[in-house]
Amino acid sequence: MSVTAPQGFEAAGVAVGLKSTGKPDVAVVVNRGPLKVGAAVFTSNRAKANPIIWSQQAVQDGVVEAIVLNSGGANCFTGSFGFQTTHQTAEKAAELLGVSAGDVLVCSTGLIGTGDQVFRGKVLAGTEQGIAELSADGGEAASLAIMTTDSRPKRAVHTGEGWTIGGMAKGAGMLAPGLATMLVVVTTDAVLTAEQADAHLRHATAVSFDRLDSDGCMSTNDQVTLLASGASGIAPDAAGFRAALAAVCLDLAEQLQGDAEGASHDIRIVVKNAASEDDAVEVGRSVARNNLFKAAIFGNDPNWGRVLAAIGTTEAQFDPYDVDVWMNGVRVCTAGGPDAPREAVDLTPRATEVVIDLKVGDAVATILTNDLTHDYVHENSAYSS
Amino acid sequence: MSVTAPQGFEAAGVAVGLKSTGKPDVAVVVNRGPLKVGAAVFTSNRAKANPIIWSQQAVQDGVVEAIVLNSGGANCFTGSFGFQTTHQTAEKAAELLGVSAGDVLVCSTGLIGTGDQVFRGKVLAGTEQGIAELSADGGEAASLAIMTTDSRPKRAVHTGEGWTIGGMAKGAGMLAPGLATMLVVVTTDAVLTAEQADAHLRHATAVSFDRLDSDGCMSTNDQVTLLASGASGIAPDAAGFRAALAAVCLDLAEQLQGDAEGASHDIRIVVKNAASEDDAVEVGRSVARNNLFKAAIFGNDPNWGRVLAAIGTTEAQFDPYDVDVWMNGVRVCTAGGPDAPREAVDLTPRATEVVIDLKVGDAVATILTNDLTHDYVHENSAYSS
Repeated sequence: MSVTAPQGFEAAGVAVGLKSTGKPDVAVVVNRGPLKVGAAVFTSNRAKANPIIWSQQAVQDGVVEAIVLNSGGANCFTGSFGFQTTHQTAEKAAELLGVSAGDVLVCSTGLIGTGDQVFRGKVLAGTEQGIAELSADGGEAASLAIMTTDSRPKRAVHTGEGWTIGGMAKGAGMLAPGLATMLVVVTTDAVLTAEQADAHLRHATAVSFDRLDSDGCMSTNDQVTLLASGASGIAPDAAGFRAALAAVCLDLAEQLQGDAEGASHDIRIVVKNAASEDDAVEVGRSVARNNLFKAAIFGNDPNWGRVLAAIGTTEAQFDPYDVDVWMNGVRVCTAGGPDAPREAVDLTPRATEVVIDLKVGDAVATILTNDLTHDYVHENSAYSS
Repeated sequence: MSVTAPQGFEAAGVAVGLKSTGKPDVAVVVNRGPLKVGAAVFTSNRAKANPIIWSQQAVQDGVVEAIVLNSGGANCFTGSFGFQTTHQTAEKAAELLGVSAGDVLVCSTGLIGTGDQVFRGKVLAGTEQGIAELSADGGEAASLAIMTTDSRPKRAVHTGEGWTIGGMAKGAGMLAPGLATMLVVVTTDAVLTAEQADAHLRHATAVSFDRLDSDGCMSTNDQVTLLASGASGIAPDAAGFRAALAAVCLDLAEQLQGDAEGASHDIRIVVKNAASEDDAVEVGRSVARNNLFKAAIFGNDPNWGRVLAAIGTTEAQFDPYDVDVWMNGVRVCTAGGPDAPREAVDLTPRATEVVIDLKVGDAVATILTNDLTHDYVHENSAYSS
């Protein structure tokens, strides 16, 4: 059900030929209220696609009626014509829904530089068709229409005490061709103010999508949107809702990791006993972005030297000669020296856990990443994307 | 001739079994003076190998009599035993040369964690044998003994007005297995003070080795050493010497790039019209470290969208929508939009040039990198290193 699991939402997914395969490529999600609360977080890349520029403005007032998403073209670096396409998309949806264009968000994903007249015509047609096909069980269709190189749709639902959260996501971390735009829409029928929605979403993404670092490459089109309808009539306990939202986002993030293109390992890097959570994140990210480490994991090689060399590049507080490293439960390095022999470590399962004990504090953070594989190189070199 | 091209230097390269292939693996370079000036720059990685920790202290006073370098083991994360090995190496050389151990530098390269009793015995034997075989034309032998995964030795010589600079280097950028330690020794018979040697070396490395960013992975053992004998009796013009030293270092850096493991393209990223040189370096480095860009070049794909997405992650001053990108002489992106068609760009040659025009100032910097290839993944996953 994904985004239509909570009350007050309708969705659709339609095919208009943006994808050469003929598969669905335009999704629409509409909030029927009574509340029309929206919040969103966006890529921090300064090179922003036109839908990002539009949506950042449109979400400012905390009111969102609908969101239109297309695959098959990123509409990024397509100039003022491309921006007008986004604007016209919002206007088309607004006109058909009887709302203000400024309350319609737009997301696009696909090849950078794609956004010509043909693209515009198809996106507008898809918007019209999608709105015509809106239904209270359209969440599944919508989740299919936003897929690009994804091998499967990503959906999650959490049932709270009288309220529900539903979500859909697309993208293969930041790993797929076309810069792997990550698009996420999460809906809830809980009663939230715009400020609450914004705060909850920022917290949830900070501990989920922001800690998925598949290949270190930042997209121009990433957008995570939360829509709240209030249709349950229930204002949830803030801590409980926040935890549930974070769990839904982490669930979707792990689905993205598990479908990362070309990857053969899903790597959880747990950094513990750090002086601060920021330190833990910095250390974990330095490992997640180290190509030598990632290639070693692909080769089932518990190469702790590459872990230490990676974390040595950070500013985090720790003594490089008093760090322990565990791989899949085996301590391979203790206090900056070799421990268990490499033969003791089994790295053949796809699920891989690396634990780094910094021994200076009590903060912890987990970063999700993937290995560097031949398929990654193939997918990202063999096709123009 | 490499390091023995200038007057006042002797060198040797010997084989003591550190390499399983039986090839030469210990090099010694000795400064016969009259001056015994030395300067060095080291990896900024906080995880430093024992030879780095030793050499950083030994070079402090600006006096260096000799340097001993071994391949076949990094002596990194080998604890106090490993540090004692480095110390004993310096003492052995000092004893045989009749100098102070504190004036002997040590470099090691190879697998992290290698530094046991057998390693120590071989390094000490190699030091003794190398000193016994020192000769004024031993530069070539020394350059062979520091090779690890290098397919060919790297040497450079510059002849100034009465003085000479010679150099040798090993490593495949930061790209090879074992974290690709980059070891460089540059010698000169010019008359330099320790302060001049240090300043000239820091300048030269900043515009050469520091701008070689093959895979973004920082070694634990990198060391670049300059030795000055003063044997020419000539104190060179400072600007002329600095330019010559930078040219020798850049020559060696380009040789490292050209031999980077698994690479199929040598990529020059020229960032021009930046607000500052720092901005230009930051922008160039962001592209050099972007796996999607690097995979695209491997696939001969002039994917300018990935260039813009990479530079959008920097803090440098520029307007992402007013940047031009050229690939091998063809402008593929102008003012944040598509320009020449991809078919107009020929990326088949190994030498690849990407020019990024930021249009905000007049600073320029060039970063050297390589593409991301199947061979890179293979080399760094198929072997424990």
